[in-house]
Amino acid sequence: MNELAFIEALRRMATHPAARHFDDDCAVLEVGGEALVLTHDMMAEGVHYLEGQDPADVAWKLVSVNISDLAAKGAEPLGVLLGYMFGKDDSRFVEGLEQALAYYDVPLLGGDTISGKGPQALGLTAIGRATHRPAPSRGGAQPGDLLYVTGPVGAAMIGYDALKSGAGDSEAYCRPRALVAQGQALAPHVTAMMDISDGLLLDSCRMARASGVTFAIEANAVPIAAPEQRRGDAMRWGDDYQLLFTAPAGLDPPVPATAIGQALDPGEAPLMLDGDPLSEKDGLGFQHG
Amino acid sequence: MNELAFIEALRRMATHPAARHFDDDCAVLEVGGEALVLTHDMMAEGVHYLEGQDPADVAWKLVSVNISDLAAKGAEPLGVLLGYMFGKDDSRFVEGLEQALAYYDVPLLGGDTISGKGPQALGLTAIGRATHRPAPSRGGAQPGDLLYVTGPVGAAMIGYDALKSGAGDSEAYCRPRALVAQGQALAPHVTAMMDISDGLLLDSCRMARASGVTFAIEANAVPIAAPEQRRGDAMRWGDDYQLLFTAPAGLDPPVPATAIGQALDPGEAPLMLDGDPLSEKDGLGFQHG
Repeated sequence: MNELAFIEALRRMATHPAARHFDDDCAVLEVGGEALVLTHDMMAEGVHYLEGQDPADVAWKLVSVNISDLAAKGAEPLGVLLGYMFGKDDSRFVEGLEQALAYYDVPLLGGDTISGKGPQALGLTAIGRATHRPAPSRGGAQPGDLLYVTGPVGAAMIGYDALKSGAGDSEAYCRPRALVAQGQALAPHVTAMMDISDGLLLDSCRMARASGVTFAIEANAVPIAAPEQRRGDAMRWGDDYQLLFTAPAGLDPPVPATAIGQALDPGEAPLMLDGDPLSEKDGLGFQHG
Repeated sequence: MNELAFIEALRRMATHPAARHFDDDCAVLEVGGEALVLTHDMMAEGVHYLEGQDPADVAWKLVSVNISDLAAKGAEPLGVLLGYMFGKDDSRFVEGLEQALAYYDVPLLGGDTISGKGPQALGLTAIGRATHRPAPSRGGAQPGDLLYVTGPVGAAMIGYDALKSGAGDSEAYCRPRALVAQGQALAPHVTAMMDISDGLLLDSCRMARASGVTFAIEANAVPIAAPEQRRGDAMRWGDDYQLLFTAPAGLDPPVPATAIGQALDPGEAPLMLDGDPLSEKDGLGFQHG
């Protein structure tokens, strides 16, 4: 069984109404009149963060990637559970964790610590409650909707280059910020929403497939936080955690957002970039390790 | 910062009313008129399971250890989220996961899959709802209460020996069963409850400390599933997932259970075993990796 077959097997197993697309999306569980939003993301040393990267930044990112999943559901974070394998500098991890939890004003509710015998692996579960119901999904875009992004992409790419080279500002890569307030403001108005964790083009492709539409994206309309000659890279790099959403034409978005394209009836490919068909096999972004 | 200091730092951070003793106990979160019970346990290859152990058994155990935490709260399981690092035989893992989820009748709600560069690490988050409120904790034993265990300890030890030697029945070690129905039946009657994951004596010690009492335990009263000469080992081995609980004298427990001792005013040690004082430093059980 290869990795994709494994994920497909889990998807087939996850038939409960609360389960969404396994490995992609939060679960939404109805409990006591509330819609709980649940997500769990793992990170491994040498795969999702650099060996020797500051553990405080790793902690920050671990919290942010999970809170960003809640943000894309318009959820209010209620707490997190940490799965922690002891590493090289646990006290720096505590510092970063404390900073991130304070930034998002979200409590640590519990978790587990273990010893391992190899590279560090970390997990975090975030729990929130939907502030608007139904919570937006990635599957609701309709032909005719406009496609928006809440801010520029490419900032994390520039930050990563700075971290690797030791010159420049790595903040955008090391301390990404999940857009919780924006997600809550948008939730009542969008037809589909997700966070851009793996690259604008790849995640747009996923939203198109989940919604059964084709997105026509105009490259020059995409706001980037990178030099113009790196526009293509900026649209393929992840880790920015901007929100990607669709809404009917005529909506005045309640938070800053840029229209970058439009949803069409499903065509030959999930994406058309300046008229050229694109799909996952074209190397659109970061394919999950 | 050493590992204990790290755990202490997390405990100090976890001040939310929903948070219980970090690394020990489930979180209990009030949402929409329900008390949600949340737990997350991790397991690492070569630490919590043998390298080369059947991944189906690993999946079963990962589910069971988390569901057992819910059982000790008298909670009804609502679902699980899986954090999965790809391993050597992912299809066997899927088989065991499916069997365990079917056994507990609990849905897979979501999760994450990652690639790693070393030994496999796994995480599972289980979510339940308390069927009795307040949900029992390990901290409620009162002097005068009787201390009970729901069944024999040592079965997993015998099963482990069978697995290592390749002879005999390893079922009790490989396929432990969390006592969900028993936990729900007991919840309204107990003053304290927890599952025995790390050994009867060590976990009794933890309950005594959390409750501020001393337990006087009579070794010969402890039911064991092992030869008599291994009674001491059986009381120190974990992985049986029996429930340990206290109740006022005079209770007729609603499920099979054996009284093994009594709670006293706090004395020189958290435990008295046949009159001898014992504490954690005496090697009472499996100290968590």
